[in-house]
Amino acid sequence: MRLLVTGASGFIGQSVLAHLADRKIETHGVAIPPFPEKSGVTWHNVNLLSPGSARQLIDQVRPTHILHLAWTTEHGVFWDSPQNLAWVRATTELMEAFSAAGGQRFVGAGTCAEYDWGDGYCSERTTPLEPATLYGAAKDATRRLLSAYADGAGFSWAWGRVFLLFGPGEVATRLVPATILSLLRGEPTRCSSGNQRRDFLPVREVARAFVAVLDSDLVGAVNIASGEPRSVREVVSTIAELIGRPKLALFGALPDRDEAQLIAADVTRLTDEVGLDLDTSLTDALQETIQWWQTRLK
Amino acid sequence: MRLLVTGASGFIGQSVLAHLADRKIETHGVAIPPFPEKSGVTWHNVNLLSPGSARQLIDQVRPTHILHLAWTTEHGVFWDSPQNLAWVRATTELMEAFSAAGGQRFVGAGTCAEYDWGDGYCSERTTPLEPATLYGAAKDATRRLLSAYADGAGFSWAWGRVFLLFGPGEVATRLVPATILSLLRGEPTRCSSGNQRRDFLPVREVARAFVAVLDSDLVGAVNIASGEPRSVREVVSTIAELIGRPKLALFGALPDRDEAQLIAADVTRLTDEVGLDLDTSLTDALQETIQWWQTRLK
Repeated sequence: MRLLVTGASGFIGQSVLAHLADRKIETHGVAIPPFPEKSGVTWHNVNLLSPGSARQLIDQVRPTHILHLAWTTEHGVFWDSPQNLAWVRATTELMEAFSAAGGQRFVGAGTCAEYDWGDGYCSERTTPLEPATLYGAAKDATRRLLSAYADGAGFSWAWGRVFLLFGPGEVATRLVPATILSLLRGEPTRCSSGNQRRDFLPVREVARAFVAVLDSDLVGAVNIASGEPRSVREVVSTIAELIGRPKLALFGALPDRDEAQLIAADVTRLTDEVGLDLDTSLTDALQETIQWWQTRLK
Repeated sequence: MRLLVTGASGFIGQSVLAHLADRKIETHGVAIPPFPEKSGVTWHNVNLLSPGSARQLIDQVRPTHILHLAWTTEHGVFWDSPQNLAWVRATTELMEAFSAAGGQRFVGAGTCAEYDWGDGYCSERTTPLEPATLYGAAKDATRRLLSAYADGAGFSWAWGRVFLLFGPGEVATRLVPATILSLLRGEPTRCSSGNQRRDFLPVREVARAFVAVLDSDLVGAVNIASGEPRSVREVVSTIAELIGRPKLALFGALPDRDEAQLIAADVTRLTDEVGLDLDTSLTDALQETIQWWQTRLK
């Protein structure tokens, strides 16, 4: 296996590289510098959004496998950013170049936002795909193109639909790190009721899942999630208790937004077909994340 | 209205320009030369598949309306051609540039191949979108991206799903012209049973429909078809009778292919919502097409 990981310096990408470190795989990472320090990875400074660059990179690396994690993910912006269209273009270029270079297996990163959230339950087989955002629509369209193209192009493909995730290294403005940072500083964290339930999976498990999907023969979409929806209140409360500041979590201090009450993932494809034994423990992974931030605040 | 027509030198494009000739619209046509001679059209020699060219063209023309007809249509090749992916890229670039230039309405050309042909009936509201080809998947994905993008980008959009069409100027290898040319030369035309039914619409009616959709406020997909499915046998027989060579149409001389028996279009959106009064007469339009070829064979 000669593996190319795009978005390799990102939140999931770095965790994937850490997970692969013990395996003797020729691994190439694509990113915009600065590159993280990872032994055994050949780094490529390539902006995949620049037309023609995917072709050039693939011709040089000639990967047998691709784990395509790169996409626009800027917090607060990515849902409606036109960059989503640029990533559709970049990904189709990557697919074509991969085929031309004799690539064997292409695994892309999808999202729970491809699903219709109307009934709260997301199953690869039964839930309608009705994205409500440009981000969701762009991921959905890309998967449709990958599916239609891969057969004729002679490579196998899978699409890992990521739900919520957290862990060391996440951007500080997102829910889990923002809560941790407030509480570590002894400041209150103002929340809505927190009753909405979501699927949270530690990033190291997300990374393990992507590698397991890459290693498997599964074709099509597969949810990458815990299968155990938890309220935002439970997540924030657990962080507050672990830090020893339970009274600083102010539920109801912010109004509830008009959003889905439940986004739950069916994970039977991941556990039964890919055969992954998930570690979905929330407390351990939150503790690990808190320690990571404590080290950085010292 | 400042209108940009892509694929303006193509089969539908030329018919659209002819239909618009009497109206005082500033019309720009995009094509690869040679350009057809059409007064009142400003021609632009632009290859939209070249990244960045859409932006450059739109910045120059600054159209208020776009009729995007360009796509790969090479007979026998287009169903599975990777060029379909390049057209997805080009179309998203066009959408973005159009928005940046303050464009108001974007009408694209879709296809009956976006539908699941399983039950033979294609309705915009009820038939599942399950394209069986890369061509259908690429059109479907493009429409999904257009729909998700247009709202936030501030322009209205529609998507005309074209079924079968025929008329003067069609590529000679396709069913209607190939049949006409054989029979005009006094050669037999070898057919399957011809029992499969399809929706045929004269190209001048397809062009009228696209202009009517452009003029309307309709948002979303709309079938551009006659609503009256006819057997291939009826079409070929009518041509043979009009030419006076009924015995040269050899039905059953070729085996039936494994294909959908019926592809019928629901046209109530086009007739009721767009308000188009369709002329679906087959005989007149076939006669006109035969005369066009007779002139060229003299």
